[in-house]
Amino acid sequence: MRFLAACRCQPVDRTPVWFMRQAGRSLPEYRAIRGDGSILKAVANPDVAAELTLQPVRRYGVDAAILFSDIVVPLAAIGVGIEVEPGRGPVLDQPFRREADLSRLRPIEPELDLAPVLETIRLLRAELDVPLIGFAGAPFTLASYLVEGGPSRTFGRTKSLMHGDPATWHRMLDALAENCLASLRAQASAGAQALQLFDSWAGSLSRREYRDFVMPATRRIFAGLSDLGVPRIHFGVGTGELLDLMAEAGADVVGVDWRVSLQDAAERTGRHLALQGNLDPAICLAPVGVVEDAARQVLKDAAGLPGHVFNLGHGVLPETDPGVLQAVVDLVHEESVR
Amino acid sequence: MRFLAACRCQPVDRTPVWFMRQAGRSLPEYRAIRGDGSILKAVANPDVAAELTLQPVRRYGVDAAILFSDIVVPLAAIGVGIEVEPGRGPVLDQPFRREADLSRLRPIEPELDLAPVLETIRLLRAELDVPLIGFAGAPFTLASYLVEGGPSRTFGRTKSLMHGDPATWHRMLDALAENCLASLRAQASAGAQALQLFDSWAGSLSRREYRDFVMPATRRIFAGLSDLGVPRIHFGVGTGELLDLMAEAGADVVGVDWRVSLQDAAERTGRHLALQGNLDPAICLAPVGVVEDAARQVLKDAAGLPGHVFNLGHGVLPETDPGVLQAVVDLVHEESVR
Repeated sequence: MRFLAACRCQPVDRTPVWFMRQAGRSLPEYRAIRGDGSILKAVANPDVAAELTLQPVRRYGVDAAILFSDIVVPLAAIGVGIEVEPGRGPVLDQPFRREADLSRLRPIEPELDLAPVLETIRLLRAELDVPLIGFAGAPFTLASYLVEGGPSRTFGRTKSLMHGDPATWHRMLDALAENCLASLRAQASAGAQALQLFDSWAGSLSRREYRDFVMPATRRIFAGLSDLGVPRIHFGVGTGELLDLMAEAGADVVGVDWRVSLQDAAERTGRHLALQGNLDPAICLAPVGVVEDAARQVLKDAAGLPGHVFNLGHGVLPETDPGVLQAVVDLVHEESVR
Repeated sequence: MRFLAACRCQPVDRTPVWFMRQAGRSLPEYRAIRGDGSILKAVANPDVAAELTLQPVRRYGVDAAILFSDIVVPLAAIGVGIEVEPGRGPVLDQPFRREADLSRLRPIEPELDLAPVLETIRLLRAELDVPLIGFAGAPFTLASYLVEGGPSRTFGRTKSLMHGDPATWHRMLDALAENCLASLRAQASAGAQALQLFDSWAGSLSRREYRDFVMPATRRIFAGLSDLGVPRIHFGVGTGELLDLMAEAGADVVGVDWRVSLQDAAERTGRHLALQGNLDPAICLAPVGVVEDAARQVLKDAAGLPGHVFNLGHGVLPETDPGVLQAVVDLVHEESVR
């Protein structure tokens, strides 16, 4: 279980490796099963979701599986009215804009609302011989979809609500945090052996915004997981300026993207946490020799870290050649032998 | 001319302020003139372009005008086959993917190819009593549009070419740098009193990528402008990890976004350059009192800088209330009296 050991900053025989969105459109076997239907439909079918989770583990020999699901699944499950448009992302017909919208965020009852997800986890634990990672979207990132009504580059409406009506903002983030915590605890109970919190868009925030408007809710989630003894991974993109705060929020492992070297990230997170990253998924579209050199550089930059989980700095791009990812897995395993 | 003085780190009576994309859809008088036509058509009409440049200066009393134009104008002018789709951005029917495509990047002849732009500058100098800023897109940002064929979140094809065929990449960036330099020199000859280089998407790069694949071309542009004695501004978004290199590339003023405080940015750029920024344009959608507090914080963070030009960290969002920007201009002028 080198993945769990690395998360806990314990000795490992080799550096563990997995890829965010390793189950995805880059795999022909994935496209064959998924077709063009909604991801939410696939997630609702435990046999399909389990098979999609297993595909990259079988193909690549990665050191962890990540549950095939989506960060908006709990929102869809409580009837918020959110869909995932292929090629676009989560969209809402009726975005959250005012206090009254908060009534649509009812408390989640995981055993009922997330029954298929939990069933998928139970199926997978019977099949897998590597650890299974459960996950959830962090309150800020989920709130951004609720408020914007879809993906955004600027988060203008989100920040407008955050600053213009902080009471509503905090109530929204608290409600999201409660559901997030309930979902993650239920996933762990069902068998998830590590938990990743995706605050994918936190990098759009200033330090002040993160500290005052986001960190309190995030911190409560990590604190609420601490009794489980399950490694907690905290991930975002473009978060170089926030890494110290993201570490402080209570994770065991902090995700780092390619903009910050692992050594700099270790400095910023206090050199006592494991780091996960940080190969640029865009580089994985280059010829395999280039990708291998970049992967070697990541291993080199990881020298002396208390713990390192090799990953990309963001999800696998759909155009990625699976052969390239295979080469990365093999290289990491071969060249990181202790 | 407090704007030029601040760029040169000379004493000023008040902090100068202007806004990136101050001429834009947020202004009713802009929408009345522009309608729904192509921006390239508006740029090609000097009377229209001059009027659009003047509108925000008249309305807000900002301390600088920025030429109404677009970073892809020189590419369109040499016949690359690029259009600007409203609401989407620059798009190419035939993206650049291989060495043979470089033949489409012919050297620009500014007096011919950019005749309307230079005429606009001449018209404006006769009208303006604040300095006029000319500008160009930086080689990396322009290359990303050429290679991706449109806006991108990941820059996968761009990085694939960069790493996979560095010879073609460097030839492309060199050609873009030559045209960029020629365009900027011609703008200065026509009367532009400061020049801003927009490397808007440089923040997607790792330090290594920036240093090896982007900085050499950028550096040549700034060096090629040094004899003009015109302040050179270097701008990008999400460039916290690159600020030292962007300063090293040869600018007089470095643009900073809201992710990095002005004090941190001053540390990273060596405390000898002027800084421009760094109010978050998304915050400008919040109630005016919130925006004023945020603007005050920017002024506070700017204390002791060698030079400070107040601006946003990126362009004005189309949904922005002009009254809010007016309040920011007035606040900066009133509360920064030396």
